[in-house]
Amino acid sequence: MLDYEHVPLCAGSRRRLRRRSLRHRRSRSSVLRRVHLSTTGSDLGLCAWTKRTAERGAEMGRRERLGAVLEEHKADVFLAANGPTVTWATGYVPEESVVRSPFEAGALALVETYGLPTLIVSELEQDAARASGLEVLTYPFSFSPDNSATAVADAVVKAVRGRAVATEAWALPAVVAGRIDVKDVSSSIAKAQAAKDPDELARIRAAIRLCDIGQAAAREASTAGVSELDVWAAVRAAVERAAGCTVEMRCDLLSGPRTTLVGGSPTSRVIAASDTVLFDLFLRHEGYWGDSASTFSIGAPSAAVVDRHARVRAALERGLAVMGPGRDVRDVERAIRKELTYPHLSGHGLGTSLHEEPRVAGFGHTALEENMVITIEPGIYDDEPGVRLEQVVLITRDGCEQLSKHDLSLMAR
Amino acid sequence: MLDYEHVPLCAGSRRRLRRRSLRHRRSRSSVLRRVHLSTTGSDLGLCAWTKRTAERGAEMGRRERLGAVLEEHKADVFLAANGPTVTWATGYVPEESVVRSPFEAGALALVETYGLPTLIVSELEQDAARASGLEVLTYPFSFSPDNSATAVADAVVKAVRGRAVATEAWALPAVVAGRIDVKDVSSSIAKAQAAKDPDELARIRAAIRLCDIGQAAAREASTAGVSELDVWAAVRAAVERAAGCTVEMRCDLLSGPRTTLVGGSPTSRVIAASDTVLFDLFLRHEGYWGDSASTFSIGAPSAAVVDRHARVRAALERGLAVMGPGRDVRDVERAIRKELTYPHLSGHGLGTSLHEEPRVAGFGHTALEENMVITIEPGIYDDEPGVRLEQVVLITRDGCEQLSKHDLSLMAR
Repeated sequence: MLDYEHVPLCAGSRRRLRRRSLRHRRSRSSVLRRVHLSTTGSDLGLCAWTKRTAERGAEMGRRERLGAVLEEHKADVFLAANGPTVTWATGYVPEESVVRSPFEAGALALVETYGLPTLIVSELEQDAARASGLEVLTYPFSFSPDNSATAVADAVVKAVRGRAVATEAWALPAVVAGRIDVKDVSSSIAKAQAAKDPDELARIRAAIRLCDIGQAAAREASTAGVSELDVWAAVRAAVERAAGCTVEMRCDLLSGPRTTLVGGSPTSRVIAASDTVLFDLFLRHEGYWGDSASTFSIGAPSAAVVDRHARVRAALERGLAVMGPGRDVRDVERAIRKELTYPHLSGHGLGTSLHEEPRVAGFGHTALEENMVITIEPGIYDDEPGVRLEQVVLITRDGCEQLSKHDLSLMAR
Repeated sequence: MLDYEHVPLCAGSRRRLRRRSLRHRRSRSSVLRRVHLSTTGSDLGLCAWTKRTAERGAEMGRRERLGAVLEEHKADVFLAANGPTVTWATGYVPEESVVRSPFEAGALALVETYGLPTLIVSELEQDAARASGLEVLTYPFSFSPDNSATAVADAVVKAVRGRAVATEAWALPAVVAGRIDVKDVSSSIAKAQAAKDPDELARIRAAIRLCDIGQAAAREASTAGVSELDVWAAVRAAVERAAGCTVEMRCDLLSGPRTTLVGGSPTSRVIAASDTVLFDLFLRHEGYWGDSASTFSIGAPSAAVVDRHARVRAALERGLAVMGPGRDVRDVERAIRKELTYPHLSGHGLGTSLHEEPRVAGFGHTALEENMVITIEPGIYDDEPGVRLEQVVLITRDGCEQLSKHDLSLMAR
């Protein structure tokens, strides 16, 4: 893989070439971002909002929620240090690295309640960043980790201009934290991310649509004699063909006795005629996650599997029936889990991160709000074949809308 | 996707279930790690080494190189904060997260010159960590980012026990850096990673073998009428079938006029009979990277493409001819680049990170050493179809050994 030049002589051509490359690679997302900026300009700070109060609840846009966090913590500005939070706060999807690099920090974003956010990126990412229409501050790329770290910290200090900074301390590089005073607001920001804005919902719906396609492909490809890895290859091919681009995608894909393991990546195990397949697919597209799970039988299922599947399906339906604004997650959890025992939560929020607030769990007291996006995923695992079913719902004004549309039936086809 | 429970009542069953899951998923790597520990025990601190001097150069194992860094910086212990560095320093491959989580930091490792390293991991990762045979210190998992951050920092403070700590400041979470005094040795550690130990070379060879398989699959699948994404799907299927497990894999895959872009992910563009395809495949397996590139023509290539391919091939051969211990990277760079102009380096080190020391570039003065693993990747890009070829070599006692064996010829078949 390419390691770009760092000689001033080549900087011009490098930028030209990278720009062309990025233009091509990012054309779809750039267009989306531009549309996003033009349609939701007020949310992104192009004009000042009326100050609404917290009573408005779910009607608050995310920049207003962010403003409330800043006000609560007496901070002037929020420094987003985690890639998904950068996307949440600005709409910009940072360049993705296969590994964290000592030579470039991930993109950071400095966001006020009003005004355009400022992206802080390595000079190698500047063209993509500028295409977002946001303010961009770049720092020089360097092959020396020491120089890079200093350069990132310098850029942040310059952008902050002495203002009081709130941040996600867990994600902020130590070299930056050492140069500015910061207040850790990780937990407040996590809560502020729970209810989604319309542009976020559009991206989540698109990601879930890709999950639906992947789920259908898994059913189609799962027959006796093919391996779990073969099924996974068919799923990825179908999803990426539909998306028209590569998609960050992972799964639990387990067949036969492996379904008792709860989770795990596909292996070379060959599927048998009597097997069930447990398939949990999660993927990120345009910065937002989709999630889904189904369990299906290749041949005629045993009575035990039929019974287990029906019990998990019933748990899912109970969840759908009780999901709505004002509901406490503890009560939702109780309704879903009822007589089932499984070692994971009954569901979780979904957005720029795969696991977000709120958790559908027996701890804490969180009231569901309109525009939250939440998975429901009951399961049964012991020494019989495991079963898990998962749907994603949007909390609406008076209940919920089921976003995922994949087949949940037990028979593969 | 699952979000695990955090209620004490379920901890036992969660652990049991995860253990089963991990045992299955990690069985291959655990075995490898155990073999690794038993065959290279002395390198991993099971007994004390004779203190050798820096003159021994390439014969130094990595723990001895690390010891030299600690001595130079008057530190007692090294805190590896970046996943790839944890693998380099301990052989352990941390659990991989699809996104960085506020609820679990990545695995950290505390390593002395002598003695067993200590892994510092979330309780959810403890079974996998313990299977490595190393010392393990766990911190509690929590759904509160604040609690998690405090827990990680507490664990590190406990492990450090007042000793002088050297670390990679760019990767260390700010919450940990605030609790202990650290000396940043990122650059020294990067240099210490350049020459590889035998166990590292075994993993790199395995990763490159998978690249060879992927390159062959790309040639096989590339015909007029299929899309770039179809080719990529065939490559991944072939690589994962050969590996018997999922593999972290990325690429530049460009056809026809898109090859002028230098880099970019595959798209739905359909390959035509007159196209060339530029394919740069890089993947990580058992914690180590492989890398490779080829450019091939689907039908009869134009005279221009034949000429360009021959020139890049000649540049590659020039690189192979001059690679050897004692050579300065500037001279190697000059030999490879000669009359070509491209906006990226002529090559780079390869290991637990995709881009490592040394860089084959016109800046700095680095002498090649035995056991360094280095890519050579000249190219030509302008308004004609782009060409890039890449091989990986191991610097040997008196020259180099070509590790990658994929087909470099211009005709696809």
